[in-house]
Amino acid sequence: MKLAVTTALAAATLAVSLPAAAQFQKPEDAVKYRQSALSLMGTHFSRLGAMANGRVPFDAKVAQDNAALVETLSKLPWAGFTPDTEKLRTKAKADVWKDGAKFKQAQDNMMSEVAKLNTVAKTGNLDQIKAAFGNAAGSCKACHDAFRE
Amino acid sequence: MKLAVTTALAAATLAVSLPAAAQFQKPEDAVKYRQSALSLMGTHFSRLGAMANGRVPFDAKVAQDNAALVETLSKLPWAGFTPDTEKLRTKAKADVWKDGAKFKQAQDNMMSEVAKLNTVAKTGNLDQIKAAFGNAAGSCKACHDAFRE
Repeated sequence: MKLAVTTALAAATLAVSLPAAAQFQKPEDAVKYRQSALSLMGTHFSRLGAMANGRVPFDAKVAQDNAALVETLSKLPWAGFTPDTEKLRTKAKADVWKDGAKFKQAQDNMMSEVAKLNTVAKTGNLDQIKAAFGNAAGSCKACHDAFRE
Repeated sequence: MKLAVTTALAAATLAVSLPAAAQFQKPEDAVKYRQSALSLMGTHFSRLGAMANGRVPFDAKVAQDNAALVETLSKLPWAGFTPDTEKLRTKAKADVWKDGAKFKQAQDNMMSEVAKLNTVAKTGNLDQIKAAFGNAAGSCKACHDAFRE
């Protein structure tokens, strides 16, 4: 096991022997990172939607767990929109890089709405959760409409 | 915006009009989910490794943030190893499904080690973080060796 740990440490080291500022070795890694974060967030957001829309029975604990995860995940994707990923073929529109201020505003709106959703989820009040879910869904859609093909 | 929200709600509803027990519409969705969770976890775990190995300067706050994320993410991938994904071509070995008890033990070991790493990261003690990182890395590797091609 000692050797195994050493090998794992060596592998982890290889993956990160970079300047501190460079969080991703290759632009493809940044794309994979942001897509993974957005995909996970979407999965857990949809589970809240299922309850907000009455498709599955409301379970306050499940709602809380999913809302907390969504808030945590909402902070991650943006680091993956690095300048060197603009050239890669993804669904990201050029405006992500051409209008960075507007893109940042859209991120901030979404993070704010899902933070509110997480706060409301802790109350266990389904009507409030429905309203907050709707606002958060709107913030997702606004960003997708503007910045995603 | 009202229409936009309604459309987003409808889209979210479509994605989740499933029995409560079925968390993923298609086996491919389950695979994407678990791969996304493992990939994100790996990225953030590597950032701890960079500090544990002295490749980047130690920053207690960065270590804490990454360790907290790794612990949160460590709980997610397992739901994606659904029985109907065994037939899909991935790196998962058949033993994931043939020896579920051992796979569960490997998951539990990893989750336990990263929980310890998160606890230790809060102390800001680099020597303890290095030790806990090594143990956590060993638990990742043990599971990969047994269950990943």
